[in-house]
Amino acid sequence: MRNLKFTIAYDGTDFNGWQAQPGQTTVQGTLADVLEKLTQQRVVIYAAGRTDAGVHAAGQVVNFRTQSPLATEELQRAFNALLPPSIRVNAGEEVSPNFHSRWDAVAKTYRYRIFRGRVVPPFLWKYVQHDPQELDFEAMAEAACLFTGEHDFTTFAASTGSEEDDRERTTTRTIYRSELLRIQSANSFHAAEEWSYVVRGRSFMRHMVRKMVGTLVEIGRGKMAPADLMKLIALRDRSKSGPTMPPHGLWLENVEYPDPANSLAPCGNQ
Amino acid sequence: MRNLKFTIAYDGTDFNGWQAQPGQTTVQGTLADVLEKLTQQRVVIYAAGRTDAGVHAAGQVVNFRTQSPLATEELQRAFNALLPPSIRVNAGEEVSPNFHSRWDAVAKTYRYRIFRGRVVPPFLWKYVQHDPQELDFEAMAEAACLFTGEHDFTTFAASTGSEEDDRERTTTRTIYRSELLRIQSANSFHAAEEWSYVVRGRSFMRHMVRKMVGTLVEIGRGKMAPADLMKLIALRDRSKSGPTMPPHGLWLENVEYPDPANSLAPCGNQ
Repeated sequence: MRNLKFTIAYDGTDFNGWQAQPGQTTVQGTLADVLEKLTQQRVVIYAAGRTDAGVHAAGQVVNFRTQSPLATEELQRAFNALLPPSIRVNAGEEVSPNFHSRWDAVAKTYRYRIFRGRVVPPFLWKYVQHDPQELDFEAMAEAACLFTGEHDFTTFAASTGSEEDDRERTTTRTIYRSELLRIQSANSFHAAEEWSYVVRGRSFMRHMVRKMVGTLVEIGRGKMAPADLMKLIALRDRSKSGPTMPPHGLWLENVEYPDPANSLAPCGNQ
Repeated sequence: MRNLKFTIAYDGTDFNGWQAQPGQTTVQGTLADVLEKLTQQRVVIYAAGRTDAGVHAAGQVVNFRTQSPLATEELQRAFNALLPPSIRVNAGEEVSPNFHSRWDAVAKTYRYRIFRGRVVPPFLWKYVQHDPQELDFEAMAEAACLFTGEHDFTTFAASTGSEEDDRERTTTRTIYRSELLRIQSANSFHAAEEWSYVVRGRSFMRHMVRKMVGTLVEIGRGKMAPADLMKLIALRDRSKSGPTMPPHGLWLENVEYPDPANSLAPCGNQ
């Protein structure tokens, strides 16, 4: 059995999230259906991040085991020919039999996009959260930095489930990068500001990033001082975080592995 | 009766083009329905460019006459509250009673986007034409320049109808700018090249831009030399142009007027 790893991208709008569920259109289910057509075998496809309904992925990583003799490039082409255009399979490679896209990931980067202009261009509304209200960028950026490091993130955990790590019983997570960026999106279609919250960590709990951003927005509105964020973390109380932001502003940007330990073949354009 | 002018943007994917047709969802019909809800009056809304089904607009300009006492900014907000997110109304202003968005336009700029990467990101496929095949950029760019100036564009006219100017019986058009651009789209979601053909002229015939691009692509494939384009124009034969490119790669970028002759009020962010 070969173990194959692919980088994929999807528009989360049309899917009920990553995870296969009976009667629902999911990314995992759609991929498995196509793989079954291609190989006549039903196998489980694992993803680095089990994104929720509406969340997009630019650089999700998946793996699955197959007896198919097709080269990864042929499989990639066949996937893209049969999948809807809202899921695209990028570079693929054969990896060691034990490689697991979720357990072996050493870092994941998420981005939350907030569109600050008054009118959201019709080409963007599925991909950004719109917030044209007054927000204190400096306060939010200062608070964003405070997430960096190892913390018990109970305050930012969803009441049920764990997005990433069933194995991890702990609510302690390490954040390597946590930054609010101001992006001038002045292309021909609009001239407006977009704020992107970018967070890189080994793993995240379910809804964690969306709750972190919801808390940053409350700081931006002046409901809390940036320094109060540390007290909020220390409370370890789920009811104390800001609101969970809507899913459509969230993007799984990329996933990192201890390269090239798990690779049997050289990596594609990941 | 006030005459109001608005700049609008739309995602052409979900519409059967600009022009209202019985039983079809069109941009003109959708706008007129919302305006009727807001003012209790059914009026005709005129557009600078009557875009075909699937064509997008970043800076379309419309005008209509109304007895509504609402300020243009209130009307803009009301439009955006009632319209689907795939149509957005931007800046508006009151203009002179005789202003007509189509007849008074002095220039329109269209863009045709060709995505050159191997895999189209799931967030782009509705907005670009995909062509990963080998194409000679220099030859296409050289030919693109040759469209500049005044020519009889019969070769690039659709067999029926005229996209822009019912009044113009002539097939002669003046092109002010005609340029092929190479754009490196290296955001976090993909690193690939996009080629944009940008054309600015006073008016265009139906399918004219799409046929011009189809001809440029044939030149890119080596089926014709760039200099042969002048002979093709001289033929004045509809059957001799390259194919009509698909609509979803085409964008109406903006429309220009002899500013501020037709304005009663200062212009918004157009």
